[in-house]
Amino acid sequence: MAPPRAGLGTNQEAVRRHNLGTLLRHVHQRGQSSRAELTKGMGLNRSTIAGLVAELESLGAVEHADTVGGTRGAGRPSVGVRVARNGPFVVAVDLGVDRAVVARVGMGGTVLERAETVFEGSEAWQVGAVVAGLVRKVVADAPDLSPLVGIGISVPGLVRRSDGLIRLAPNLDWHDVSFGSIVLAALGVDVPISLANDADLGAMAEHERGAAVGVGDLIYVSGNVGVGAGVITGGQRLEGAGGYAGEIGHLRFNPGGKPCHCGNLGCWETEVGAHAIADAIRCPPERVPELGAVLAGYAKAPRELRAIGQAIGQGLASLINAFNPQVVVMGGYFGALYSLVRDEIDGGVADGALPAAAESVTLAHPALGDDSVLLGAAEMAFEPLFVDPPSALGRAILDARARVAG
Amino acid sequence: MAPPRAGLGTNQEAVRRHNLGTLLRHVHQRGQSSRAELTKGMGLNRSTIAGLVAELESLGAVEHADTVGGTRGAGRPSVGVRVARNGPFVVAVDLGVDRAVVARVGMGGTVLERAETVFEGSEAWQVGAVVAGLVRKVVADAPDLSPLVGIGISVPGLVRRSDGLIRLAPNLDWHDVSFGSIVLAALGVDVPISLANDADLGAMAEHERGAAVGVGDLIYVSGNVGVGAGVITGGQRLEGAGGYAGEIGHLRFNPGGKPCHCGNLGCWETEVGAHAIADAIRCPPERVPELGAVLAGYAKAPRELRAIGQAIGQGLASLINAFNPQVVVMGGYFGALYSLVRDEIDGGVADGALPAAAESVTLAHPALGDDSVLLGAAEMAFEPLFVDPPSALGRAILDARARVAG
Repeated sequence: MAPPRAGLGTNQEAVRRHNLGTLLRHVHQRGQSSRAELTKGMGLNRSTIAGLVAELESLGAVEHADTVGGTRGAGRPSVGVRVARNGPFVVAVDLGVDRAVVARVGMGGTVLERAETVFEGSEAWQVGAVVAGLVRKVVADAPDLSPLVGIGISVPGLVRRSDGLIRLAPNLDWHDVSFGSIVLAALGVDVPISLANDADLGAMAEHERGAAVGVGDLIYVSGNVGVGAGVITGGQRLEGAGGYAGEIGHLRFNPGGKPCHCGNLGCWETEVGAHAIADAIRCPPERVPELGAVLAGYAKAPRELRAIGQAIGQGLASLINAFNPQVVVMGGYFGALYSLVRDEIDGGVADGALPAAAESVTLAHPALGDDSVLLGAAEMAFEPLFVDPPSALGRAILDARARVAG
Repeated sequence: MAPPRAGLGTNQEAVRRHNLGTLLRHVHQRGQSSRAELTKGMGLNRSTIAGLVAELESLGAVEHADTVGGTRGAGRPSVGVRVARNGPFVVAVDLGVDRAVVARVGMGGTVLERAETVFEGSEAWQVGAVVAGLVRKVVADAPDLSPLVGIGISVPGLVRRSDGLIRLAPNLDWHDVSFGSIVLAALGVDVPISLANDADLGAMAEHERGAAVGVGDLIYVSGNVGVGAGVITGGQRLEGAGGYAGEIGHLRFNPGGKPCHCGNLGCWETEVGAHAIADAIRCPPERVPELGAVLAGYAKAPRELRAIGQAIGQGLASLINAFNPQVVVMGGYFGALYSLVRDEIDGGVADGALPAAAESVTLAHPALGDDSVLLGAAEMAFEPLFVDPPSALGRAILDARARVAG
């Protein structure tokens, strides 16, 4: 506890750390920035900006750039800063129901290295060991002294906001699993680790640097084995009381339909999820993991996919009525289907959505391709760095050997 | 445009007006407040608070109160302020599909006078004339020099946020109606007027001074002829891109069901709206306006309402999965039904909602009874007063005769 008389000094220090973080976030979002842009964007004077840049340089987070963007005035290039080569990085984990993709991601959202594997056993400790192995792989070649800020994990299920507990990952059959601790135990290192729902992270990444930059109201729909949504409204993530908002795979859709793992009949997920798609095109259940490749192989939509497209559109109409978004990003298999059966999807939306809500919405492919969720996990792991860079870098792991200790 | 050198002064003036508004909002929310509470709550020193209070007194918005709340220290009563008798007021209009309720509402959310009528013709100009008549009636006895700050109107339909245009009021058969201008024309006076969706206003009022004070994530469900929701998430209203979010009456519910006015089959509204309730209990269509009295007349639920209760619960389960609220306020006829068929409603929620979302949600009756929406309209009309009291009072109508000019 600071003594009361230190109040002002403490405040100034907090403001300085806040400004350092804001500047670093700005550079991270764009990859680079000119000093003129920073001065204008942050509303601070040139000497304050210079001081902040100098401190971030000394922390190894940014470096000097001779020319940034275009030129200014009489053709003189604008000097500025860019994210540091060998600067801070994070590890992002996209956990699926039968595979994990792990990447080392640098500032600016650059994937520096990636590893992927299909796993056999799906017990949490088994998957934790698989993920730890992939993490070791992607950090092995990271430069020495390049700080590992944290690990971010996307989860195909419900994640408690307060502590990252996985309350339910239905297609892994996990209930109340503290997967973050399991991965840290398998790694044998102490590094900040955070978890969130996959669709929420997809929404975050597409909003930050994808198909919905500058869009205040958007839905990222994740169409995989499970179907979920990440919702951003008024520029803020829709979290709900516990962090579980967006479970739109369990909207009642066809009460006479198939049983869902949640215990109800005919949830939207049972009609448009990966298994329903596989059924429609007679892809055997064991090949569902390859469904992406199967769908990519079609030049033209087989007739059987049309009904799925219509059901996707009809469900999206309910979401559009409920959330009135500007953009719906079609993540997971919905992206491939939006290429194949676009007319059916658009038709379902047009039929089901109220005109006032339908007229202003655009359906879009994810601009980050298959990496929306992975890059969202990276953004989440970077977050503490933009809140307080000196503290986050103080906690970061610098020693390359320590990172692969386990 | 202020000259550049006036920058600091202009800023100080803006801060002062902001502080005046914040203090006034504080007193409005509680009806009264001690100076000690204000000093603590606003983080300003005693002399600044005294100056703000003096200015609000001179504006006629608050007045001195000798004793406020309990006592402090050695039994000495805490002096403070309360909302002024004969202070600023608003007119709130709750527009239904066949009737309008209009009230004069004072600061502190006190209904000072109320008038209500069932209307015959439902053309916008006819309804506008009816509403204008009721407005005249409730302001006729307002004290001279008591300022009319504005009129707030709740609408059973979709209201464009940018300008208050009613895009669609399905049960009035209105499309793109500028009802605010129509009412002003019928009144013949120029006063700030604002419009919003009824369920959104119900949510606002229950959050401000009802069943969900201090709750960050709540849904106010309005079960009337139409069914809609007002959603507050993370303490902010969920508006969507155009202001149309919350149209959950058109969630796909029973695709083999009855046709809805929106063109689809089996929207939730067709299964749980007033007409469905009336059908279930064999109340003839022309008596739907009295449905509230009919429901209130049951000591025990007739068997026919049980299926409706279950359908309400099943639909709420979809909302709970989508929004993960802490509280669902049962507005409109849903309140009466929650008294009659609570087990069926709770059962539908328990069956349909994911446990992580269901375990933390409470269904509640509106604490403001039938007045949630009306008081929400009043809060909306007061809003400019809490943003900038001197400006809002400068625009207000003081002259009692001018208020009933038309």
